[in-house]
Amino acid sequence: MTSRIGTSLPDQVARMEKADVARRSRYRMKDTHITLSHGSGGKASHHLIEGLLIPILANPVLDGLGDSAIISPNGNGSGRLAFTTDTYVVSPLFFPGGDIGCLAVHGTLNDLAMSGARPLCLSVGLILEEGLLVEVLERVTQSIADAARSAGVAIVTGDTKVVERGKADQLFVNTSGIGLVPDGADLLPERIQTGDRVLISGTVADHGMAVMLAREALDMEADISSDTAALHELVDTVLAAAPNTRMFRDPTRGGVATSLNEIAGRAACCIRVDEDAVPVKPAVRGACELLGIDPLHIANEGKLLAVIPAAEAHAALAAMHGHELGRDAAIIGEVVPEPVGMVVLNTGIGGSRVLDMLVGDPLPRIC
Amino acid sequence: MTSRIGTSLPDQVARMEKADVARRSRYRMKDTHITLSHGSGGKASHHLIEGLLIPILANPVLDGLGDSAIISPNGNGSGRLAFTTDTYVVSPLFFPGGDIGCLAVHGTLNDLAMSGARPLCLSVGLILEEGLLVEVLERVTQSIADAARSAGVAIVTGDTKVVERGKADQLFVNTSGIGLVPDGADLLPERIQTGDRVLISGTVADHGMAVMLAREALDMEADISSDTAALHELVDTVLAAAPNTRMFRDPTRGGVATSLNEIAGRAACCIRVDEDAVPVKPAVRGACELLGIDPLHIANEGKLLAVIPAAEAHAALAAMHGHELGRDAAIIGEVVPEPVGMVVLNTGIGGSRVLDMLVGDPLPRIC
Repeated sequence: MTSRIGTSLPDQVARMEKADVARRSRYRMKDTHITLSHGSGGKASHHLIEGLLIPILANPVLDGLGDSAIISPNGNGSGRLAFTTDTYVVSPLFFPGGDIGCLAVHGTLNDLAMSGARPLCLSVGLILEEGLLVEVLERVTQSIADAARSAGVAIVTGDTKVVERGKADQLFVNTSGIGLVPDGADLLPERIQTGDRVLISGTVADHGMAVMLAREALDMEADISSDTAALHELVDTVLAAAPNTRMFRDPTRGGVATSLNEIAGRAACCIRVDEDAVPVKPAVRGACELLGIDPLHIANEGKLLAVIPAAEAHAALAAMHGHELGRDAAIIGEVVPEPVGMVVLNTGIGGSRVLDMLVGDPLPRIC
Repeated sequence: MTSRIGTSLPDQVARMEKADVARRSRYRMKDTHITLSHGSGGKASHHLIEGLLIPILANPVLDGLGDSAIISPNGNGSGRLAFTTDTYVVSPLFFPGGDIGCLAVHGTLNDLAMSGARPLCLSVGLILEEGLLVEVLERVTQSIADAARSAGVAIVTGDTKVVERGKADQLFVNTSGIGLVPDGADLLPERIQTGDRVLISGTVADHGMAVMLAREALDMEADISSDTAALHELVDTVLAAAPNTRMFRDPTRGGVATSLNEIAGRAACCIRVDEDAVPVKPAVRGACELLGIDPLHIANEGKLLAVIPAAEAHAALAAMHGHELGRDAAIIGEVVPEPVGMVVLNTGIGGSRVLDMLVGDPLPRIC
């Protein structure tokens, strides 16, 4: 949670607005080669998606860019389904608090849950590297099965491919999922209004730091473990307490900062965040400071952001606190009219700064 | 299309029946490491799927093992959906007749079509290797878009991951898809009856040999190109002409031989195939003979097998001949009562032999 002092807020805002206008004027990707930062979930990922993939694949549903697509198989708006896909390349495969298997199940369930959908079923696509220990595959498959079962969701279809040694990294997993969107559910950034509150369901940066420390085999890992969890029940709990909830988002790659920037952009509003209100575990904060990275840029895999009308925000917070996965929930910010499309952080030391999306990728292959 | 002479058919059958009993008695995978043959679609793939993945992930829908899962979101059997996933790791990315992009779209559309479903939408999950040329990604994405558009299907959701150089092979693609299953459609091997005819919609082994030759940069590649194509219209055409069609299957990895063995196993029948009736392009046959591989074991990506009551078989054949993708269709075999679970080939030289699933993998990474 570094804070940049020395550049005035209006200056920063002016610079960002200019950049944003440039981006929106049909950005075309200029890079000639893919780099790791294109997979970060941050700015380079956005350039790849908005500058290359979306223009080529464009259609109205895809342009929505939500965590999952909402489709209407009957064409009449009833019986809507949410559909989502995610590929997992996390390294190492096993880390404190989880592994690639349960992560792949939770991640896809959460993408469905963020649109208010009840998860219905999942597919699993595996890419295996020649020479992989069958024992490792067995552990990961068991973890997939356990995570799906405890979420009450069936794995209904699958596919397995094998590539030569050195053409993959042990094991990659794709999970796609279908959920049922309840009639009337309409969770979208476009519904956000000035004065709405922004809530986070718990401490940030746990997953990213757990994977990072497991990878580097640093000693401090003992106190830090991934928050990977399925959030669909927490979503139900919040919706029961705050039926006018505007939207949910799970701040995975790119962290809370990237998700809030995406929301502010879609909603054409500004989000002010109170840095001191953001819950961070002391061990995680310590590790972030040591490594010089902002916990707001680090991936979470069992947390949600919720934008909720002020009148219902405290009821939602109480509901989160009553749920196992929301014990450390907090109201961390508020929606204000401008500067449009930006996230402004009220820093611990009394100043404020623009909080940008993740640039570069301090932690590749976090999910 | 080699023919083994010297072992009598009854002997072969007895040996296979013993093997089959052993397999069914809760086969447990004994390999300690993954090998390329686990990705072949043939016998080792079946061991991996039935000996490890299915027992761990087991649920009634997955146990069906069809090309796609049939789910009923409303729980009342109406508005059924087909759901399928496939990962593509074909090497090289571009080959005569297609590339990994259109292949990934066609393959998943075909899995939906085989259950009689009308394709509704697709997801695309990409794994990119650091250093990949953006130009290559652009060509593949364009091919995905073109294939989806000409099939009238939208890409509605996607995901992109990047891994370090040397941890993937340029580009892998996962496509998952949802289709609508028309009320009354019930295409299943269990419906097969003695006397039914087996049809193939065209020449076999084109895709596998095209990729193989492109990979090896052999000179004969000029005349051989992949058959990659979307088959859902051909399915509609056949169903209109032969409404009692029992089932379809697209013989991809492992080829016609593996698909027919799967069908014979599920339907608890025997399938007799007339080797001379199987259409193979002369150039493909020549390449297969040169390389010592049986075209019946080679992957197809734009062909379907159909099992159809004798009374409707000729109408179905005529309908196929009238469709661009079915010009070379042929009736290649017949369902007989026994030996149960096996495929017997009437060879060109007047003998017969058991036609087994693919064993090993002569052509890794064909799709």
